[in-house]
Amino acid sequence: MKKSLGAKPFLIPTPVWLIGSYDSEGKPNIMAVAWGGICSSKPPCVNISIRKATYTYHNIMSRRAFTVNVPSKDFLWQSDFTGIFSGKEVDKFASTGLTPVKSVLVDAPFIKEFPLIAECKLIQTYEIGIHTMFIGEIIDIKADETALNEKGLPEWGKILPFLYSPIDSKYYGSTGPIGDAFCIGERPVIRWSK
Amino acid sequence: MKKSLGAKPFLIPTPVWLIGSYDSEGKPNIMAVAWGGICSSKPPCVNISIRKATYTYHNIMSRRAFTVNVPSKDFLWQSDFTGIFSGKEVDKFASTGLTPVKSVLVDAPFIKEFPLIAECKLIQTYEIGIHTMFIGEIIDIKADETALNEKGLPEWGKILPFLYSPIDSKYYGSTGPIGDAFCIGERPVIRWSK
Repeated sequence: MKKSLGAKPFLIPTPVWLIGSYDSEGKPNIMAVAWGGICSSKPPCVNISIRKATYTYHNIMSRRAFTVNVPSKDFLWQSDFTGIFSGKEVDKFASTGLTPVKSVLVDAPFIKEFPLIAECKLIQTYEIGIHTMFIGEIIDIKADETALNEKGLPEWGKILPFLYSPIDSKYYGSTGPIGDAFCIGERPVIRWSK
Repeated sequence: MKKSLGAKPFLIPTPVWLIGSYDSEGKPNIMAVAWGGICSSKPPCVNISIRKATYTYHNIMSRRAFTVNVPSKDFLWQSDFTGIFSGKEVDKFASTGLTPVKSVLVDAPFIKEFPLIAECKLIQTYEIGIHTMFIGEIIDIKADETALNEKGLPEWGKILPFLYSPIDSKYYGSTGPIGDAFCIGERPVIRWSK
């Protein structure tokens, strides 16, 4: 039996990604987001939703670029920090000890210490409720060499991304692989009767 | 040192959600998606990206509604199944043994056996690359009573959602809580020099 809980943003899991941007003076900033995801395979695009009140909103609007930085769970407190404080007042790189690296592809900084990052050009904005959705085209993915597997691809187990739950405002961890997609679901099928 | 991997949709984690919809004859269909997320807190909205070639695309366009169904990892093969086969040919509810329940709030079915579901009204569509992004306003969240904790809220550990990686096309599991958001990042801050 299902219980109704009302109109709430109670879907899980959501990712924890840090958004890198420059302000008008060139100061690098980072901000944690959980409202986001991949929204196109080709060209590869990512969407993130941010409120206008944030520093990052104005940075992205003026620079037309941002980075998506995937933290491992080793960077749990640093990631949370960047979601609590505003770049208007706080130097979030200095406070967390993280290092901004200037992208040569887009006008935004990425985080040196994070294992997986995406450099994105802003291609569209949409107003949805109290948030602005930024659509970024992924120009390049970069990964730490130590996070790559023998095939040269980023390995989940070497990154160990973590998750956010909007239901209880807690972070959750991830585990190793539990199955191959487009594979384990191969079973006898029941076709529609004509 | 970071290695460049090119323009790819290589961000993790992405969710695994099953989208419920009705076709023009009222047949219920489900389809797994990983391109999606929450995109507004108020009103609560969810975005999912789907290609025009899918059965679900036409269902949502005509019914202006869909459900988001969060599987536990007990439903791994069933979820994968719904991402492999098309509802044009296959009765995905019958083939997986899952049960469609008609929503009384929106014109779409949800999955009886899944622990957490969202009933959504389509409020907007955007074309992004090869995908169409559907924005659904979450009209209601429903959860199995067995998935609720003592506070009456859905508990992650009783749902155990799983994840998808577009890097290696595998599913990954989730663990229990690893920290409180907007809390563990509270540290001394370094302010910008004026």
